Amino acid sequence: MKTVGFIGVGNMGGPMARNLLKAGIKLKAFDPAESALAAVVKAGAERVGAPADAAKGVDAVVTMLPAGPHVSDVYGGKGGVLAAVSPGTLLIDSSTIDVETARATTAKARERGLEMLDAPVSGGVGGAEAGTLTFMVGGSAEAFRRGEPLLQKMGKTIIHAGGPGNGQAAKICNNMILGISMVAVSEGFALAERLGLDAQTLFNISSKSSGQCWSMTTYCPVPGPVPTSPANRGYQPGFTAAMMAKDMKLALQASQANGATAPLCGVAASLYDLLCKSGQSGLDFSSIVLMLTGKSFPKQ
Amino acid sequence: MKTVGFIGVGNMGGPMARNLLKAGIKLKAFDPAESALAAVVKAGAERVGAPADAAKGVDAVVTMLPAGPHVSDVYGGKGGVLAAVSPGTLLIDSSTIDVETARATTAKARERGLEMLDAPVSGGVGGAEAGTLTFMVGGSAEAFRRGEPLLQKMGKTIIHAGGPGNGQAAKICNNMILGISMVAVSEGFALAERLGLDAQTLFNISSKSSGQCWSMTTYCPVPGPVPTSPANRGYQPGFTAAMMAKDMKLALQASQANGATAPLCGVAASLYDLLCKSGQSGLDFSSIVLMLTGKSFPKQ
Amino acid sequence: MKTVGFIGVGNMGGPMARNLLKAGIKLKAFDPAESALAAVVKAGAERVGAPADAAKGVDAVVTMLPAGPHVSDVYGGKGGVLAAVSPGTLLIDSSTIDVETARATTAKARERGLEMLDAPVSGGVGGAEAGTLTFMVGGSAEAFRRGEPLLQKMGKTIIHAGGPGNGQAAKICNNMILGISMVAVSEGFALAERLGLDAQTLFNISSKSSGQCWSMTTYCPVPGPVPTSPANRGYQPGFTAAMMAKDMKLALQASQANGATAPLCGVAASLYDLLCKSGQSGLDFSSIVLMLTGKSFPKQ
Amino acid sequence: MKTVGFIGVGNMGGPMARNLLKAGIKLKAFDPAESALAAVVKAGAERVGAPADAAKGVDAVVTMLPAGPHVSDVYGGKGGVLAAVSPGTLLIDSSTIDVETARATTAKARERGLEMLDAPVSGGVGGAEAGTLTFMVGGSAEAFRRGEPLLQKMGKTIIHAGGPGNGQAAKICNNMILGISMVAVSEGFALAERLGLDAQTLFNISSKSSGQCWSMTTYCPVPGPVPTSPANRGYQPGFTAAMMAKDMKLALQASQANGATAPLCGVAASLYDLLCKSGQSGLDFSSIVLMLTGKSFPKQ
Repeated sequence: MKTVGFIGVGNMGGPMARNLLKAGIKLKAFDPAESALAAVVKAGAERVGAPADAAKGVDAVVTMLPAGPHVSDVYGGKGGVLAAVSPGTLLIDSSTIDVETARATTAKARERGLEMLDAPVSGGVGGAEAGTLTFMVGGSAEAFRRGEPLLQKMGKTIIHAGGPGNGQAAKICNNMILGISMVAVSEGFALAERLGLDAQTLFNISSKSSGQCWSMTTYCPVPGPVPTSPANRGYQPGFTAAMMAKDMKLALQASQANGATAPLCGVAASLYDLLCKSGQSGLDFSSIVLMLTGKSFPKQ
Repeated sequence: MKTVGFIGVGNMGGPMARNLLKAGIKLKAFDPAESALAAVVKAGAERVGAPADAAKGVDAVVTMLPAGPHVSDVYGGKGGVLAAVSPGTLLIDSSTIDVETARATTAKARERGLEMLDAPVSGGVGGAEAGTLTFMVGGSAEAFRRGEPLLQKMGKTIIHAGGPGNGQAAKICNNMILGISMVAVSEGFALAERLGLDAQTLFNISSKSSGQCWSMTTYCPVPGPVPTSPANRGYQPGFTAAMMAKDMKLALQASQANGATAPLCGVAASLYDLLCKSGQSGLDFSSIVLMLTGKSFPKQ
Repeated sequence: MKTVGFIGVGNMGGPMARNLLKAGIKLKAFDPAESALAAVVKAGAERVGAPADAAKGVDAVVTMLPAGPHVSDVYGGKGGVLAAVSPGTLLIDSSTIDVETARATTAKARERGLEMLDAPVSGGVGGAEAGTLTFMVGGSAEAFRRGEPLLQKMGKTIIHAGGPGNGQAAKICNNMILGISMVAVSEGFALAERLGLDAQTLFNISSKSSGQCWSMTTYCPVPGPVPTSPANRGYQPGFTAAMMAKDMKLALQASQANGATAPLCGVAASLYDLLCKSGQSGLDFSSIVLMLTGKSFPKQ
Repeated sequence: MKTVGFIGVGNMGGPMARNLLKAGIKLKAFDPAESALAAVVKAGAERVGAPADAAKGVDAVVTMLPAGPHVSDVYGGKGGVLAAVSPGTLLIDSSTIDVETARATTAKARERGLEMLDAPVSGGVGGAEAGTLTFMVGGSAEAFRRGEPLLQKMGKTIIHAGGPGNGQAAKICNNMILGISMVAVSEGFALAERLGLDAQTLFNISSKSSGQCWSMTTYCPVPGPVPTSPANRGYQPGFTAAMMAKDMKLALQASQANGATAPLCGVAASLYDLLCKSGQSGLDFSSIVLMLTGKSFPKQ
């Protein structure tokens, strides 16, 4: 693939687009925010004035958008990608959105004979800049085969999770587990503190025991045990409380829409929501431990 | 240490006592259940008729009892250990009980000039039989130094968690995280199934991602991904739902008694409680995934 | 109004339609289930073969359908009401559905110059048969003025809750409170039982105190205190667990879609869901107390 | 009864004691806080220097203390009431404490041949001052018969809830329902606001429907519908968040200790706990609606 249309070049899409430019891909870029667009144009992208223009005469279109309705609109709306794109173009949506919209958009693309991948990422802004993102990819085997080399220019781990929508499904299920287990670990440290059990001691024990989880051993919510975790830099993200609140909401909505019972997801979603509503949406999501223990929040 | 009084030689205490016998320790054993007592007597222990008798003329006393009130009674009650034990005897309680009772019992022992360790275990009946238990130990450094060699005859990993009660604190905090994360993983697999995402695929992704936790990667609640997990043998324990319900209750009570906020612990405790009340207390605790998905339970 | 098209004449719609017939209204009725349709035809309705046929040449159309997608389809789909209805016909949807679909459907009706009311009911099958339903109505003041006399033929209390969608909003908010408070009351009785406090005594106290709520004083979930409550007839509905699970899901989805934080709704929704998944969807929703206390369920 | 020993004359006990003085009862009063004690002495009580002194030569002893351990200590501790009290004196504890301590204290009193009532109150400081408290009373029929006339001097409604501890049981069960239903009502108003449904409209509908509860119709958490509710005076208590957090903790502990499953109580207890930890413990508990909606709290 030599030319790509890139729609949505903000916090995440911007560095992803720059990695494509560095890899020698020719880019047509669009973003409604002028400053975001100017940054990738400065880095070598061609500026276009509308999503449809980014979709014409390219080998692939990559989108990185805030939420499901934006994806529906950019692809299927008037002046959208599907109406303008050339035959044979591969469509890749890297937004994190609900499974239903992902599947519906892919279905519309197929009606026009186009292949599409849903390919949400994990790894945050840091991973986007370093080109070390993980892509969880849904779509046909053939579409995955075509898209994988392009995704490798923006990420390190590219996983095929199954048919259309399964990239979103994998991300939602994983982040649901993450969001809950971070609260679990925080409740554990909160109780330990009250019982006079040192955080480092609990870490030493649980990191080698049945309480072990990524939320503890890689992203420990209390300062000390894991020097690289956000807790050691005033809970600067990382992955913001707002983003976790969004993912937990997606998980809860998916559970409701599909008949899955998710009691802990429901409570955890509310807790991240309360964290955001108390004014901490910009802090790392692991700052949930401060809310649970009634500690003061660092300045954002 | 050459002679040990062992009080409570049932499912867990029985195999622990046998491992001491195998290591050449002379045992005085007591248990109110004749069948349990007979089994260790057959293995070489001396039968005694009361806790006080097990406490006389031994280097150490080890207790393995169901709950806090039993520990209070066996140590501090009429005809209990504290009234009968010889000076210099080391006391080790391996029951899983509340921190307050552990600390109060140690304090009473100290009033009589005796050292005491709270040393609850993880690893289950299998670990007790294999001598591979993990001991989480609270007590003075000196008491730990004295007790460690004895505990090594019954376990593989012996961890000093701090002063009196901290062994119980460590176990409670760890198992609280475990109990919640098992539900989290179960909710994740339940949602994946509804979204058409294969369990093995979610496992492949999350086991290397931010949703990784012991509940998934070592003790996976759905059949398939981890062949040794109870899910692959009809949810035969392992660690029963009843035992997890007990530990979650201990965690919730400790949180309430000490002012820790534990919303997910509260809900998870209720879920294990409902699992038990629906008649599944003898299944492995990972069968919570069957309750969440409305699947039928295997015969116990 | 003299002629009405009635679409959906099942458990609820059937008796509502019969009350219109009794009041002298001429009915064109449609239902995909032949047995339901035959019953109202026998009562005097004219049988039609499609929703569009029920919408032609009538003064008003009333719909009573299972869920949002059915409403979207019956009104806006091919061969739907909106394409067939005569100008000036008043549209009334009495289904319980999500607010967004209600508002979107009303908006489509207005594009065609038609007035529409969302008018979900409470009161159950008993209220439908007795003509004592409560209608919570959203729509313009003019539409409400036109529809009220018709609704009075099927119900006792007709409340205007504001603009389009507000009938659904009122029902969802009310039933969310109901669903949670029924669990609250059940937890209260469950604890009382364990503490040796007689159910009747708790009822006597709380019914005149700050714990008073409809779930206790009108619909008491334990047998005895309120003779007319389903608990006294083996939890025969009333209002089924399945219907409460549906309403709690609507409330939870509405909360998520609109940024409302609803922690108790999330847990209560899961509990009703677990009740249904354990096979009790046909019992009254107040049987949640049996699940919480681990009592056996009556045969359905 | 002519003379009463009154121990604990603070926010609640103070006005209760003054009502006894107004009724012509001679009081011996004790409180460790000098200012509280001085206030009732000024009102006519005799000052005594220790609980034991308040217990000698009186017809009854009334205690109003912060928590269970205080009650254990004041009655059963060294220099406590039980060691000093004259035969035939009636003991009445109006503190809100756990059922077990209440029953244990009564049992100790009986060992000494003394009758005792547990008689916690509802109605708050306002009810204490106005003499309109509700007393929920546990104890023997004979003790209740003897105590009722005295309680009537301090309250309006005196309810016999059964044997020892049942007064506490009734209060805990009632307040558990109250604490949950206040969150339920708050979630309902929060969702209504997001859906564009006016608070007054939801009130009008639900107050006459199945969502009706005391938390809405008497103590409405949003300003407007119920003019006398704390929401209309900047959430000045009323009943503080701290007191509700304490009662929910008692309910949760009682549930755990007695094997009752209480999922909503667990979450609601955490929510009130978070409200307190965020600095709002002195506001009325109905301010939980502000936390849920992310609104700013009034100055305390």
